[in-house]
Amino acid sequence: MFQINENYLKLPGSYLFSTIGKKVNAFMAANPDKKVIRLGIGDVTLPLAPAIIDAMHKAVDEMGSSDTFRGYAPDLGYEFLRSAIVKNDYNARGVDIAVDEIFVSDGAKSDSGNIGEIFGKNNKIAVCDPVYPVYVDSNAMEGRTGEYIAAQEKWSNVIYMPCTAENNFAPELPTETPDMIYLCFPNNPTGATITKDELQKWVDYALKVGAVIIYDAAYEAYISEENVPHTIYECEGAKACAIELRSFSKNAGFTGTRLGFTVVPKELKCGDVSLNALWARRHGTKFNGAPYIIQRAGEAVYSEAGKAQTKEQIAYYMNNAKVIREGLKDAGFTVFGGVNAPYIWLKTPDKMTSWEFFDYLLEKVNIVGTPGSGFGPSGEGYFRLTAFGSYENTLAAIERIKNM
Amino acid sequence: MFQINENYLKLPGSYLFSTIGKKVNAFMAANPDKKVIRLGIGDVTLPLAPAIIDAMHKAVDEMGSSDTFRGYAPDLGYEFLRSAIVKNDYNARGVDIAVDEIFVSDGAKSDSGNIGEIFGKNNKIAVCDPVYPVYVDSNAMEGRTGEYIAAQEKWSNVIYMPCTAENNFAPELPTETPDMIYLCFPNNPTGATITKDELQKWVDYALKVGAVIIYDAAYEAYISEENVPHTIYECEGAKACAIELRSFSKNAGFTGTRLGFTVVPKELKCGDVSLNALWARRHGTKFNGAPYIIQRAGEAVYSEAGKAQTKEQIAYYMNNAKVIREGLKDAGFTVFGGVNAPYIWLKTPDKMTSWEFFDYLLEKVNIVGTPGSGFGPSGEGYFRLTAFGSYENTLAAIERIKNM
Repeated sequence: MFQINENYLKLPGSYLFSTIGKKVNAFMAANPDKKVIRLGIGDVTLPLAPAIIDAMHKAVDEMGSSDTFRGYAPDLGYEFLRSAIVKNDYNARGVDIAVDEIFVSDGAKSDSGNIGEIFGKNNKIAVCDPVYPVYVDSNAMEGRTGEYIAAQEKWSNVIYMPCTAENNFAPELPTETPDMIYLCFPNNPTGATITKDELQKWVDYALKVGAVIIYDAAYEAYISEENVPHTIYECEGAKACAIELRSFSKNAGFTGTRLGFTVVPKELKCGDVSLNALWARRHGTKFNGAPYIIQRAGEAVYSEAGKAQTKEQIAYYMNNAKVIREGLKDAGFTVFGGVNAPYIWLKTPDKMTSWEFFDYLLEKVNIVGTPGSGFGPSGEGYFRLTAFGSYENTLAAIERIKNM
Repeated sequence: MFQINENYLKLPGSYLFSTIGKKVNAFMAANPDKKVIRLGIGDVTLPLAPAIIDAMHKAVDEMGSSDTFRGYAPDLGYEFLRSAIVKNDYNARGVDIAVDEIFVSDGAKSDSGNIGEIFGKNNKIAVCDPVYPVYVDSNAMEGRTGEYIAAQEKWSNVIYMPCTAENNFAPELPTETPDMIYLCFPNNPTGATITKDELQKWVDYALKVGAVIIYDAAYEAYISEENVPHTIYECEGAKACAIELRSFSKNAGFTGTRLGFTVVPKELKCGDVSLNALWARRHGTKFNGAPYIIQRAGEAVYSEAGKAQTKEQIAYYMNNAKVIREGLKDAGFTVFGGVNAPYIWLKTPDKMTSWEFFDYLLEKVNIVGTPGSGFGPSGEGYFRLTAFGSYENTLAAIERIKNM
C-alpha cells in the first residue's frame, strides 16, 4: 500500500493567503453591496509597463512564425535574459556574478519553496519571526522542522529569530547554530531593512559556522535609503555562503506574469560539491524553463524604457506607502516600514490580536489586510498593509480607517 | 555545517537531454559547415496556431490596461481553463472529472518531477524500462530509489518493467509489489500503446495491491487507432488509484510556452487523507500559478479554431512519423511506434549500442536522435527518432539514412 508524505499532515491550517482569500470571499458573498479594498496579499495593481507589453507582443508574433518560433528554452534561462540580469542587477552595482550563476525560474515563490530540495534533511533552519510562510511550510513538507506545537504556534526544530519593535525588526545572531538561515530584506512582512554593515555580520557569521544563507531580495527595488544593500553579494565573502532569490513580481508587476531568478555562486560549496551544479541538476530535471514570451518580458524590464517605466510604478506604490504610513500615524497608530519597502507594519490597537483586527477591519470598514500572527508568533499584535493598491483605493482605505 | 541532499550525488551523469545537447553543440562547433538535423529531443517545430497567437495578443493587451490587468492567478489555475479542460478532455469522452480535480501547472515535466513530493519516502516505484528519465531521476533525488548500480545501469530499489520487442513494448504486471507505478501511454520513448482492456488490468491491479498509478498521457492527441484510451479515467475504478499528467507541449506546440495540468481525483485517498488536498497544498505553497497570458493560450487550444488548427499540426507530425517509419523499413531497419505516437523506436543496426549508433548517425549523416539506453537498460540496442521536425528535414534525414 502506498504511503503519503506524512509531513504534510503536520502542517497547521492552510496556506495563509488561501485562508484570507476564503474569509474575504465569504464576507463578499454575504455583503455584496460593500466595496472591499484589498491591501492584504502583496499583489500589484498597475498594468504592465508599455515596454514590457511591446516586448511580449513581439515575442508572441515570433511564436506564430516558423522562422522565429521557439521550442524548449535552455533549462536555466535564455542567455539574453541572464546577461541582462547580470549586467543590471549585479555588474552595475559593482558585483561580479557570472551568467551561469543565474537560474531563471517561474518566480521567487517556486524558488523559495524548491531550494530546500538540494539540502540535507537534517539541516536546522533559522527564520526571522515573523516570516514569509513559504520558507517554513516548504521545509515542514520536507520534514526539516520537527513537530508543530500548536500552543506556541511554532515548530519544534526551527530556530526562530524574533523581529519586533524592541530590536527594530532586525534579527539577532542566534545562540543555537543553524545550518540554513533565511533572510529577507527589505523584509516581508515588516518592511524593515538592515544596513550593509549589519548584513556583513550575517555573512561573516554564516562563513564562521558553516551555514548557508537563503537571501530573499524580492523587494530590493523599493530601497530608497543609502547604505541598504540591494544584493547580499555586496558583502564580502557572500558568494561562498549565500544563495539569492529575486523576483520580477514587485519591481515590474509580474505577479500574474511569473518570472524570477535565483543566484547560486560557483564558490558556494559543501566540501567539494558545488551547489550551483546541484541546483542546475534540479532545474534540469524538474523544471523546463520559463516561457519564451515571459523571458522576453523580463528582458524588457532592463531596457531603457522599461527601467524608466518600472521606476515610475515603484514611485507610485511608494507614494501609497507614504499615504498609509502618515495617515495611520495621524490616526494614532504605531507604524513601521514603508520607507524601503512596499509594506507597512502596524501595531494593532487596543491589544487586539492580529486576527481580531483582521476581522474588525474587514467588517467595520471593509478593508483586507494581513494578520501579523499569520507570519509567525512574534507577528502577533501586528498587522500588515501593502502599498500595492491603487492610489484612490489607498486614500479611501486610510480615510475609512481614520473615521473608524 | 550545512549538508546537501546526498541523494543528488548518487545520480549518474547528467540529465539525458543535457548530455545530448552538449555532444551536438561540440559536434557543430567542430563542424560549422554541416547541416545537422535534430530528431532527438521531442521538441516541436511548427509555430503556435493562429487561434493561440490571437488569444495571447489579447491577453497581453489585457495585462497592459488597468481595467483588465491580472495579478496573482488562482493557485490551481483559472476557472476558464480548468472548465475547458474538463469539458473537452474528459466530459467529451464520457469521463466525469470535476473542475477542482484539475491543477494547472507550468508543464508536465514539472508535475512529473514534483508529484513525488506528496508521497512517502519508503514507497517503492515501478517504471517501464525504457522510461522518460524524469520519473526515475526525481525519485532518486528524493531518496526513493536506493543505490545506483553502474554495471547494470539500474537503481537497487526500483522495479523495472522491461518493454521490448518480445512483449510488444507493453509492461507485464510486476512480480514484486510496487507502491507507485509510472505508466506513460502512448509511450515515450517506444511509441507503443496499450488497449483500454490492457490498461483496465493495471487499474484493477493497482486497486488490488494498494498502489497509485502516475499516468502520463502527454501524447494522447496522437492516438489514431480505436480502443486506445485517451485518459486512464476511461477505466473503471481509476479515480480511486490514478493521477493523470497532461501537457500542452505536444498537442498544441507549447514546449517553449509551458503549460500542463495534473488530475488528482478526490476519490484518490490514502486511508482518509485526500491526495487532492495534499497536491493543492503543495501547489499553493510552492507554486504561484501559470502566467495569465499562457492560461489564455491554453484556453484557445480548446476553441473551435484552436481544435481545428492543432489537429492539422498533429496530422503534419504524424505524416512525418509515417515518412520515418516507412523510410526506415525500406532501408531495412526494424521499426516500432509512430502510429499512435510521434516517436519512432528502431533497433540499432549491426548490433551497435545505442550510443554507438548516436555517434554514428551524428558523424556520418549529421542527424541527432536519442540513444535508447538513455531511457533505461532495456532501451539498449534501440534508438528514438521523433516526428517533430519539419517535413523537409524529416524527408532529408530519411534520405540521408537510406544512403548511409
